[in-house]
Amino acid sequence: MTVTDRKSRVVIVGGGLVGSLAACFFAKRGHYVSIYEYRPDIRTVDCWGQSIDLALSVRGREALRAVGLEEVVVDHHGIAMRGRMIHNKNGSLKEILYDGVNQNCIYSVTRRYLNIVLLNAAEKYSEVSLHFNKKVVDADLDDGKLTILDTRTRKIEKAKADLIIGADGAYSIIRRTMAKKPRFNCSQTYIEHGYLELFVPSGKNNEFMMSNKHLHIWPRGEFMMIALPNDNCTFTVNLFAPFLTLDKLKTPQDLLNFCEEYFPDLVELIGRQKLVKDYFEREPKPLISIKCKPYHVGKTTLLLGDAAHAMVPFYAQGMNTGFEDVLLLDELMERYNSDFSKVLPKFSELRCEDAHAICDLAMYNYVEMRDLVRKKSFLVRKYIDTFLYKRIPKTWIPLYSTIHFSRMRFRDCIANKQWQDKVGRNTMKKINNRIRIIQNVLEQLSFYRYYAEPLGARYS
Amino acid sequence: MTVTDRKSRVVIVGGGLVGSLAACFFAKRGHYVSIYEYRPDIRTVDCWGQSIDLALSVRGREALRAVGLEEVVVDHHGIAMRGRMIHNKNGSLKEILYDGVNQNCIYSVTRRYLNIVLLNAAEKYSEVSLHFNKKVVDADLDDGKLTILDTRTRKIEKAKADLIIGADGAYSIIRRTMAKKPRFNCSQTYIEHGYLELFVPSGKNNEFMMSNKHLHIWPRGEFMMIALPNDNCTFTVNLFAPFLTLDKLKTPQDLLNFCEEYFPDLVELIGRQKLVKDYFEREPKPLISIKCKPYHVGKTTLLLGDAAHAMVPFYAQGMNTGFEDVLLLDELMERYNSDFSKVLPKFSELRCEDAHAICDLAMYNYVEMRDLVRKKSFLVRKYIDTFLYKRIPKTWIPLYSTIHFSRMRFRDCIANKQWQDKVGRNTMKKINNRIRIIQNVLEQLSFYRYYAEPLGARYS
Repeated sequence: MTVTDRKSRVVIVGGGLVGSLAACFFAKRGHYVSIYEYRPDIRTVDCWGQSIDLALSVRGREALRAVGLEEVVVDHHGIAMRGRMIHNKNGSLKEILYDGVNQNCIYSVTRRYLNIVLLNAAEKYSEVSLHFNKKVVDADLDDGKLTILDTRTRKIEKAKADLIIGADGAYSIIRRTMAKKPRFNCSQTYIEHGYLELFVPSGKNNEFMMSNKHLHIWPRGEFMMIALPNDNCTFTVNLFAPFLTLDKLKTPQDLLNFCEEYFPDLVELIGRQKLVKDYFEREPKPLISIKCKPYHVGKTTLLLGDAAHAMVPFYAQGMNTGFEDVLLLDELMERYNSDFSKVLPKFSELRCEDAHAICDLAMYNYVEMRDLVRKKSFLVRKYIDTFLYKRIPKTWIPLYSTIHFSRMRFRDCIANKQWQDKVGRNTMKKINNRIRIIQNVLEQLSFYRYYAEPLGARYS
Repeated sequence: MTVTDRKSRVVIVGGGLVGSLAACFFAKRGHYVSIYEYRPDIRTVDCWGQSIDLALSVRGREALRAVGLEEVVVDHHGIAMRGRMIHNKNGSLKEILYDGVNQNCIYSVTRRYLNIVLLNAAEKYSEVSLHFNKKVVDADLDDGKLTILDTRTRKIEKAKADLIIGADGAYSIIRRTMAKKPRFNCSQTYIEHGYLELFVPSGKNNEFMMSNKHLHIWPRGEFMMIALPNDNCTFTVNLFAPFLTLDKLKTPQDLLNFCEEYFPDLVELIGRQKLVKDYFEREPKPLISIKCKPYHVGKTTLLLGDAAHAMVPFYAQGMNTGFEDVLLLDELMERYNSDFSKVLPKFSELRCEDAHAICDLAMYNYVEMRDLVRKKSFLVRKYIDTFLYKRIPKTWIPLYSTIHFSRMRFRDCIANKQWQDKVGRNTMKKINNRIRIIQNVLEQLSFYRYYAEPLGARYS
């Protein structure tokens, strides 16, 4: 059954990735969908501000597959990255595969391209109407009423919905309206680090200047650069660093000194002039993490994607989690025949804890990317994980694989990792105990040689 | 120096306890103060909604003392409570003193009375003007501009300030405006429990029906009642319980069955009819905890009191912490000669972590009040604490005393408690080790008796 008995009027606030994907799923079930997006149509404008490149993995792919978009996105556009490429300060490289067993990859895609594909797909459904330059300025969530400002004509219009979807991103007006209602928990946390976008151009013969099979990382402890390949043979580069560090880079010379000390190979690839130009054209942007609970109001309002759980970008799960939200919502619409009075509470019940878990993991992964990947202990653990994964693939799945290459619930991914850590600790304890026993035996033997032998000799 | 060189225009949003106290401190330094309060003047209306009674202790008293109000509040109105009175299910009572060494008390005061005293005090300064029924509807915090709605005339007015003080409580509009600015961290957390206000009337001869020297607690594990004495010989009672529990009390009979099972003595004191009437006249209210950081915007805006750090009421530190905020602010105005570009960042730097600490402690204390106080382990710890406090009062100060009877920074109160716990654990370890050694010796002796004696006997 793809079309349900109930046909609802759904208003989706936000026409970004999650909003336009959700529109496809609602329309497939025969619901009437209006998307209100406060920015202009991305298909008609050239530039839409900076943003970190996306890395698509299983959760996101499965959602795209369900609306017939996986192939066009992954095969025609996505660039497979099979692992991290670590750039050391001395210029040496070290490859760390994401999945040394099944050779799974994550796929670099550009946000703009993906958004265009999704808007085009949504628009193909007769049930969907798209409205751009429309900013929600007020919302009565209990009654499903929205007040909307046309940002060009400055005219106010009203909309009425059976269901409002807040897919309006980290700074969601729908979430802010929910926050005024009792018993809605939420937190917004900015990390002390900001980010800035740079670019590695394509080579003279329009070729990639580094391997395009990798997510490149320059881990430097407190800060890092990363680079993801684009399908025009360029790389989108992001510098992540404490604002305190960024604030000190006041002049082009400050910037060049800093980059030449920590990222000499990258300076060569970008070029000094372009580096300075790109850096000072932009402002460093902050990184926010959002948690809230519940995600719904009655049977009338639901948050999806960044509006519900914006996260720092270090596990590349922001979009994937948002897409999986939509998959889960669709599964629940199927189960409850689009009865939103049942769908919405169930969605909150199932999803909040998992989304909080991936927000925490994303926070943790920043430390891994900028610091731990340089350390021997990390590489040893990675080696042991791969070794065990190869031998007992159903029992021992490394954390990274559960996140990127499975749909294991995020809370279970963490529990699985904690179990592995415990096994590891117990094994180390046992090994240490064995060593201690052997040491004891050796000591006893030397004691025996020292005392017993002369005694033995005495009796001989 | 009480009057500074700089005279600023200060707008205080909120004329509650903290707002009106802050007005006194600003006026004392010669600043011009306007208070905008969205409710009517509490001095002109009879009832102002329900709210838990207040317990005043050292932090709050010191702030009142600095504006000459300690005596009138504590001596003329406050009711000294020297400890908790635990009401067991079988009707038996158990007194637990707050301070078995110095006999320090906390003082029950009514919010309404205290607010009236503070507004009267503020109004005495020629620098202060009070504006009621004025709701802030928009704020430009960088420029110190406010848009204010007169809730009676529905007219809009504008205000301009050098400094905006957000003392507008847990649902602060000023904090919500700050939350839209980058790099402002905040969280709002509702606990799963709600509260409801009831009353124990005075006796036939206008006397207290229970001891008025105590904060009465009916701890029942997952829920509890508390009662604080009022100066008209009544008690204000609060039921704290999970909403799930409260939702089940649908009819008068449900309520009576529940209360007669868990609070039989209290049912007698309140009276069945009054209990039912009071309970069903009101809606259970939620309990919110707010954390945010920083507390300021540039040199123009600062949050104080609940607007900055609303907490659950279980450590009775909401008002006391808010009053101590004002003390700290005044100390910083003195130090920096009211240069708010220095005062405000320093306030955030010093205060955020301490306020977060007391928010956490308040959360913890709910478990202590409704559950732990019934347990032997709690009473033993309390006994040991008092024993050591008596002998080494400068070294061993119990947590409760550091919170209520000192101005130790809240983070240090927690560190102090953690140190005590560590000492406790280590002592227990040592005692256990001694016991083990003695056990070993005893075992050796019995071994000796078993083997050696016969041998000895053999040689005899």
